[in-house]
Amino acid sequence: MKKIAILGSTGSIGQQALNVIRAHNARFRVVGLAGGKNLKLLEKQIKEFQPEMFYSSVKPDFAYKGEFLSMEEIASHPEIDLVIIATSGKAGLSPTLAALKVGKTVALANKEVLVMAGELITREASFHQTQILPVDSEHSAIWQCLRGEESNPRRVFLTASGGPFYHYSQPQLSKVTVEQALHHPTWKMGKKVTIDSATLVNKGLEAIEAHWLFALPLDSIEILIHPQSIVHSIVEFVDGSIKAQLSFPDMRLPIQYALCYPERLPSPELPHLELSKIQCLNFEPADQNRFPCLKLAMGAGRQGGTYPAVLCAADEVAVELFLNRRISFIDIAKIVQETLEQHKSIAQPSLEEILAADAWAREYARRSLPCHCEEHKRQSTLSIGK
Amino acid sequence: MKKIAILGSTGSIGQQALNVIRAHNARFRVVGLAGGKNLKLLEKQIKEFQPEMFYSSVKPDFAYKGEFLSMEEIASHPEIDLVIIATSGKAGLSPTLAALKVGKTVALANKEVLVMAGELITREASFHQTQILPVDSEHSAIWQCLRGEESNPRRVFLTASGGPFYHYSQPQLSKVTVEQALHHPTWKMGKKVTIDSATLVNKGLEAIEAHWLFALPLDSIEILIHPQSIVHSIVEFVDGSIKAQLSFPDMRLPIQYALCYPERLPSPELPHLELSKIQCLNFEPADQNRFPCLKLAMGAGRQGGTYPAVLCAADEVAVELFLNRRISFIDIAKIVQETLEQHKSIAQPSLEEILAADAWAREYARRSLPCHCEEHKRQSTLSIGK
Repeated sequence: MKKIAILGSTGSIGQQALNVIRAHNARFRVVGLAGGKNLKLLEKQIKEFQPEMFYSSVKPDFAYKGEFLSMEEIASHPEIDLVIIATSGKAGLSPTLAALKVGKTVALANKEVLVMAGELITREASFHQTQILPVDSEHSAIWQCLRGEESNPRRVFLTASGGPFYHYSQPQLSKVTVEQALHHPTWKMGKKVTIDSATLVNKGLEAIEAHWLFALPLDSIEILIHPQSIVHSIVEFVDGSIKAQLSFPDMRLPIQYALCYPERLPSPELPHLELSKIQCLNFEPADQNRFPCLKLAMGAGRQGGTYPAVLCAADEVAVELFLNRRISFIDIAKIVQETLEQHKSIAQPSLEEILAADAWAREYARRSLPCHCEEHKRQSTLSIGK
Repeated sequence: MKKIAILGSTGSIGQQALNVIRAHNARFRVVGLAGGKNLKLLEKQIKEFQPEMFYSSVKPDFAYKGEFLSMEEIASHPEIDLVIIATSGKAGLSPTLAALKVGKTVALANKEVLVMAGELITREASFHQTQILPVDSEHSAIWQCLRGEESNPRRVFLTASGGPFYHYSQPQLSKVTVEQALHHPTWKMGKKVTIDSATLVNKGLEAIEAHWLFALPLDSIEILIHPQSIVHSIVEFVDGSIKAQLSFPDMRLPIQYALCYPERLPSPELPHLELSKIQCLNFEPADQNRFPCLKLAMGAGRQGGTYPAVLCAADEVAVELFLNRRISFIDIAKIVQETLEQHKSIAQPSLEEILAADAWAREYARRSLPCHCEEHKRQSTLSIGK
């Protein structure tokens, strides 16, 4: 029995991880659950899975016999074998480090952890000889394609559905509503990730994550638009042979793969893909110019230092402003760009320096709320185009 | 330095294997070459690669210092590490057995070896703990997808281009000329294999080969029409995850993979596949009713015994008759069907029994040359339809 803790159990990935565990309840025992503000759901999960320890970001309004611990304490607790980091934003950073430092296997769904602190995190994992198992569908695909291979890949293609607006013109993009942006064509995900998919910043973050997870140069990672979301990523080897991993877009598959690895378990709940019914798989190169957030993310990844942390923070603020209808869809890129441009990066940053850059970027991004008078609009367009 | 012998070096696969070896000449040494009747080409290859031993099916008309040995002697010679069986039809059977019995690694491109004698061959390989490495692009794809995996696949999809006539109607198929049939849309191959691709019998043979190579039940092997010949085969695991192997259709890749395994070597000669330029990959289920040779082959595989050997022999005779313009394209299936129907199969056959079934089938198929008078035409159509 693998003893599991889930940080972020009330989020989309956390709930699906519990579905997987429920389907294989003879294999796994949930010993720790950490939720955010959705106490009602957390209480329900706790009642069902009876973990020894729990956490919530707000004071719980229910009584439970288990121990209330911090996320760091849960992630590094002697009782657990594997911790699923299903938090979002920077919340997963410190618990991931805590887990790695005591040699716990980490199943990572919180991509910002590696984007913000990839160097630090991979150094700790390597020093303590612990494994970081990817949970994102794209990274799980790469991991599956690399299984048993001895040589490094020549190129990796991260597939992107392109989101709901991939064929929109610039004027169309400027009129996108929150409701339209939250309607992803192929994946059901949390709000933040759905907006990040629509701006394509998500693929930039995933490229940085892949760079750290698989020790790949960023220039060997390409983004490929694949509207069907059936091929989750593609690996090309030095001999020109290519492997791809395919499935219906359902996060329970990569979650189960990480939890069961190296085993593969049958799962009656997971849908079978019939390729003969899919009929056609399309691919086209990603246009970074029409989706500036992707270009900004790839640039921040290449520059390294605290730039990727600033990218994450500015994007989080901008997406929140968009969801609160304070800015337009195309303003997200403008805020991220301006924040990155104003940042003074630090090379090989410590956790404190990363968190300081994050705090600075949040403050800066919040204040850089774009003015929609004609003069500023014109300037912003010039700035984006350069 | 791996010491290699190539049986069938003057054929299409043999020549491409020598191309691969030429591109990596610090890795491999050719110690044996065996050719058929093309003495001019064999002499040229011998002059270039200077093997210690050689063979030709007709008396050589050139002088060479190396030893003239039988294919069985070359395949089992103490000097060699790996033998490439690139012969065709039943010619590879006895040398493969000879190689396996002394523990040589066999790279198998002659699919009839496993189709005719899969049970015998895999038993010998398992008893002598020797490896049979697939060279066919489809089987190489399956092998690459299974690399590092611990569990058996749930399903395997062998892809087929469908050949030049996949969308032809029955009346169109009856008028197909030799020239049309020899013009394969995506692969450059020998004549026999090209016709076998057009009748789709080839996919049936490959399904039987995959069944033996990877210990897969025949019912877990499905044929998928994929006109672009980019995805070479697809493996589905018990968790619903699917892996596919892709590349430009170029036999040098699977040949090199088998020769270098477990390493992957860069090869400047092999073309890079740009998925963003391919744009679309199509799939559709194979229609066994319109291509009766495929249905006959799958049936022979399921029945086992000496049926698959009879299938190979009858098909070889029928294809030869077609190439010699003695019968029409749709007569190939009629001859194969009639020969299979008249055969009395033997379970768990010995090599002798397999060769006897082969001889019987050749004789029967040659005599069953369909009569093209109206009465027989009508009967043949009825027979095929049942």
